[in-house]
Amino acid sequence: MLEPAALPLPVRILGCGSFVPERRVTNAELEHELGLGAGWIERATGVRERRRGTCDTTLSMAAQASTRALEAAGVRADELDLIVGTATAPHQAVPCTAALLQRALEAPDGRSACFDVNSTCLGFLTALQVAGQLVASGAHARALVCASEVTRHSINPEEPESAVLLGDGAAAVVLERSPAGSDACVLAARFETHSSGSQLTVCRGGGTAQHPNDPSTTRAMNLFRMDGPEIYRMASRLLPPFLERVLAAAGWSRGEVEHVVPHQASGRGVDLLTRLCGLRAEQVVRNVETRGNCAAASLPIALAEAVAAGVVRRGERVLLIGTGAGLSLGAIALRF
Amino acid sequence: MLEPAALPLPVRILGCGSFVPERRVTNAELEHELGLGAGWIERATGVRERRRGTCDTTLSMAAQASTRALEAAGVRADELDLIVGTATAPHQAVPCTAALLQRALEAPDGRSACFDVNSTCLGFLTALQVAGQLVASGAHARALVCASEVTRHSINPEEPESAVLLGDGAAAVVLERSPAGSDACVLAARFETHSSGSQLTVCRGGGTAQHPNDPSTTRAMNLFRMDGPEIYRMASRLLPPFLERVLAAAGWSRGEVEHVVPHQASGRGVDLLTRLCGLRAEQVVRNVETRGNCAAASLPIALAEAVAAGVVRRGERVLLIGTGAGLSLGAIALRF
Repeated sequence: MLEPAALPLPVRILGCGSFVPERRVTNAELEHELGLGAGWIERATGVRERRRGTCDTTLSMAAQASTRALEAAGVRADELDLIVGTATAPHQAVPCTAALLQRALEAPDGRSACFDVNSTCLGFLTALQVAGQLVASGAHARALVCASEVTRHSINPEEPESAVLLGDGAAAVVLERSPAGSDACVLAARFETHSSGSQLTVCRGGGTAQHPNDPSTTRAMNLFRMDGPEIYRMASRLLPPFLERVLAAAGWSRGEVEHVVPHQASGRGVDLLTRLCGLRAEQVVRNVETRGNCAAASLPIALAEAVAAGVVRRGERVLLIGTGAGLSLGAIALRF
Repeated sequence: MLEPAALPLPVRILGCGSFVPERRVTNAELEHELGLGAGWIERATGVRERRRGTCDTTLSMAAQASTRALEAAGVRADELDLIVGTATAPHQAVPCTAALLQRALEAPDGRSACFDVNSTCLGFLTALQVAGQLVASGAHARALVCASEVTRHSINPEEPESAVLLGDGAAAVVLERSPAGSDACVLAARFETHSSGSQLTVCRGGGTAQHPNDPSTTRAMNLFRMDGPEIYRMASRLLPPFLERVLAAAGWSRGEVEHVVPHQASGRGVDLLTRLCGLRAEQVVRNVETRGNCAAASLPIALAEAVAAGVVRRGERVLLIGTGAGLSLGAIALRF
């Protein structure tokens, strides 16, 4: 892949917001349900609890997180001219979630363009890259990027190692061009897909290949299936040189990155990234212990919570990095 | 919405390709099946036949159309560094169709970034806008944008006016930066969503709100439903001023546009656009008579067929324009 030429992009995250359902699902509850020994989940995955909604929907969580992001940014919904939605699965097949979100936010007709982006767990990073380019070029002035995931319907009880990871949640950011005098920018962005790993994380249903009305579609096809050990091996091989290239493009040494916000794949996944990439534990933002893996919403929830807690601050070097089904790698290096 | 500032984008479509399944579904066949009078379909919709595959999948059609686009462009799959997929519904929920397409094209691991874009029938235009920005900024050098739609599973027999429209098909384009001396560029792009019309075209299933495994999900929820007359009214009101703004941004009078390639919503839809926007019939590219409405793939199939037939040629002013569920409007004005 060629190195981006037009970087740094003069774009900044004006505000973040997140939302997780109230209902906490404890390890004890899941260990009982799935017939796992006491303590197995925390030992195997590092996750202590995750949220799973009862009535919360992809759209309702997207609206809650977006409202908080708009508040944090001091931007009204009628000031948005771009709304990008992202999720592993949309709220419904038609129309796209972003159009439904325009309505839910009472953003005015015709003022914003709405579309969805999908690259599974990398969806938020991809949507941020796409919206950042559209804002930097002047095609849009103020963008909302929102990831919202209801994962609870896709949990595969036959696969405890993924079943215990997944949680529901949503997060959003508001983007705009950096004003004169601000050093906020995107310094580097890099995305690559290694489809020799395309069968490592799958949900065969949910599309046209196994349409919900097709009699050959089984319930199992509508559930996540992942080959954890093989993903771990492939990520171990790909991540270190990938990180090197991103840091080189940003002009950063790994020691001077103030915060790395990774996709919260699992406790082991975050540990792997930290160790393999030679990062210090205190550089790495993590919430997988209490949120689990919320797919595309995981990374932006971690970012929004770290910003709300005052951990990530203006002017700092922040590296957003993740892996997703595909197998895809993505990273955005930004001066926050 | 602000007018784009960074236009014209120095990007050109290097090659187009399309694919439709072999099986032709005639009006006589559908009139018999749906209990409609002889001749009703052509009178009501202008469609004479549409293709509906038997074994063709979203992925297989995407691969066929993409291979043809690469051949037309003289580009090898290993020269791509971006693959963007688009469809109303993906091949499967995980991973995204673009990642599966990288594999199907035998494009090498790690050389291209892959993601999907969704704005229903506007998906191709949105993906073209997104990929065009990424290529223009230098983030990627050579992009494949591919729309592929299997609509046959979502046809609603209770709604003959939409059931007779839908067809299967795929189309792709290869994009790159315009070389020095070429006048090929994107002169204007405009997208707006009017979500007061978000309930006019829906498929409530296919996502998390009515997950395929949810016992409350009915077969009918997994089918398209559209309020044709109300969409017609809304589009009639919105299209003329929208076209004015796009033409103004491109600096074109309507008379000097060589080709308008609209989304092939229906024969009446294309007629409406032609009449309302004051276009001459010979300016408007149409294939709805033989292809029906192939959702996101409709517009690029019409474009690819017009290019292959020598109708659309290098250097001409081409306006791509469409509507989609949302209700969304989109247009891209390009010097081909």
